[in-house]
Amino acid sequence: MHSTASHPSALTYPQTDPTPIFDAFRGNFSTELLSAAVAHFKIFDFLRDGHRSLAELRAHCGLAERGAIVMITALRAMNLLSRAADGRFGLTALAREHLITGAPFDVSGYIGLGSESAGVKDMVARLRANTPAGATDPEKGAAFIFREGIESSMETEASARHMTLMLAGRARNCAPALAHGIAMDQAKILLDVGGGSGIYSIACLQKNPKLVAIVWDRPEVLKIAAEKAVEYGVADRLQCVAGDMFKDPVPAGSDVVLFSNILHDWDVPECRLLLERCAKSLRPGGRMLIHDVFLDDAMDGPLPVALYSGALFYLTEGRAYSAAEYCEWLRAAGLTPGEIVPTMVHCGVLPAIKGEQR
Amino acid sequence: MHSTASHPSALTYPQTDPTPIFDAFRGNFSTELLSAAVAHFKIFDFLRDGHRSLAELRAHCGLAERGAIVMITALRAMNLLSRAADGRFGLTALAREHLITGAPFDVSGYIGLGSESAGVKDMVARLRANTPAGATDPEKGAAFIFREGIESSMETEASARHMTLMLAGRARNCAPALAHGIAMDQAKILLDVGGGSGIYSIACLQKNPKLVAIVWDRPEVLKIAAEKAVEYGVADRLQCVAGDMFKDPVPAGSDVVLFSNILHDWDVPECRLLLERCAKSLRPGGRMLIHDVFLDDAMDGPLPVALYSGALFYLTEGRAYSAAEYCEWLRAAGLTPGEIVPTMVHCGVLPAIKGEQR
Repeated sequence: MHSTASHPSALTYPQTDPTPIFDAFRGNFSTELLSAAVAHFKIFDFLRDGHRSLAELRAHCGLAERGAIVMITALRAMNLLSRAADGRFGLTALAREHLITGAPFDVSGYIGLGSESAGVKDMVARLRANTPAGATDPEKGAAFIFREGIESSMETEASARHMTLMLAGRARNCAPALAHGIAMDQAKILLDVGGGSGIYSIACLQKNPKLVAIVWDRPEVLKIAAEKAVEYGVADRLQCVAGDMFKDPVPAGSDVVLFSNILHDWDVPECRLLLERCAKSLRPGGRMLIHDVFLDDAMDGPLPVALYSGALFYLTEGRAYSAAEYCEWLRAAGLTPGEIVPTMVHCGVLPAIKGEQR
Repeated sequence: MHSTASHPSALTYPQTDPTPIFDAFRGNFSTELLSAAVAHFKIFDFLRDGHRSLAELRAHCGLAERGAIVMITALRAMNLLSRAADGRFGLTALAREHLITGAPFDVSGYIGLGSESAGVKDMVARLRANTPAGATDPEKGAAFIFREGIESSMETEASARHMTLMLAGRARNCAPALAHGIAMDQAKILLDVGGGSGIYSIACLQKNPKLVAIVWDRPEVLKIAAEKAVEYGVADRLQCVAGDMFKDPVPAGSDVVLFSNILHDWDVPECRLLLERCAKSLRPGGRMLIHDVFLDDAMDGPLPVALYSGALFYLTEGRAYSAAEYCEWLRAAGLTPGEIVPTMVHCGVLPAIKGEQR
């Protein structure tokens, strides 16, 4: 059910789906991951004589697990790598015919013509270092994420404002679908972890007049959330709590904990830690919502999500995850996952309830 | 009819279609042309209040016609710009909702997050300068093309060999479809203009045992063609003629003139000149074949060809053209165009006959 509210400060659905714009924007990760695999890591020649395990591929390329998974997932989404029943990776017919050096229909030289472009070389460097762009540069720090010990533009007022507002553009498109897709009429308090501009909370507050939301984020980011709460008329029900989600006590008393496009910024141990910490703060029967993109459980697509995973790899400490990965972590944290509710821009909500069902 | 020849030096069809590999390789041009339009040229804000002509768009962006056409074509293929009956350009509903600064569902800030990447900045510089990458750098010259007065890697043995062999990867995939799609059993001499590795000529020679081919290219490039002629067993019928296709006399006596993936390297005046010069060398009833990609006549796609046009813009003095554009030039040169025969990797053959039909 789409909102038909005409008040200028009500969050409503867009008339057109912006997904193709995001997909067009992320095309470079297709070029970069393919060219890196062909011309720099020479994965296809390495697999010429048979299947190899993830560990063998990582050793050959000199890659940490995160980068290897991101690259392999993209190549599988491009139908260039296959995975056997034993988990080892091999060449598809397409790759065997066209990407082995010297094969009759080899086009790897043509692909190699782009191997020295700045984008490809930068991606190769990031894959090798397993750090986000800028993270090894003490002048710049990491752009999108905050963790004690790394510099972050989320700590400086001007850059935190800029980044938070830019990210809010996607949130405004997705938030109404999230608020309408997940019933919160019985919930009292929503905890929005790393809630940024607060747009997702605001959509839930507009949909559920008795709900209160806590946006938990860095102090500079929360200035935006406070402004947006006023703009959208929910300032009396939106509470801003500053903190470090990895270290500070989780704000207590929530019925629903939301991670909206947050976990994809972090590597697996951090994701598990965040889910575990927040799960503990929930009462039995309380819910956790993961709003994010989802790779297929087979980790072989969809291609747009696999390319977005390249973007996340490049910009953050995370990547895209599959629902199966999230479900494993949710279960380990004592939650029972449900079914994904699609929202927009390849995103969906994976809900989970604390405690066993039945 | 696919060749089933088993001899190792016979050119045959690939078993799998390499087109998705080329498309994946060219994804960066989607990112770069979109980000340039949004964040650097601010085309969508410029069109907010109504339609504008190509001249007005060019003046706003500071672009020569070639770059403006390449960018506008890509944006139309992305469903972001429309063209009215009077030829002026406007916003689609998608662009109006999501790419005007400050609109409720604006994601232009999100797109702008990529605006300072090396790939985007380099494309913006090329669009502004209307020169191929490297062409303004006296150390590097232009990579793929030769014309008197510009430096070209096609003039140096090692680089000419490398580039020619890399480009031959695509040719090997496409050439059998060209040779089988175009009847040359009545032809005596094929002139392959800028024929590079000679692969297209070789496929035609293998298909037509009485045909002779002349590969007309730069001296360093012809060394490869001579080697390939031996490798594929047609050295007795493949003649290498060194020359400057813009200035030297066109080798005389051919029944068929082939431009295979050549014209897309050149701007409109050079294309018209080449077609005119070669048309004069043909007898009435002789044929000209343009093997290339083709934009839709409406200049609004297909998207993969529009992105390849970005690659051609970036690397050469050309772009992708529509069949309508080629047909206009062919008619001006005294030829009557026929129907396109598809080959592979978005390519096809546009044939034309010298003289009027009926």
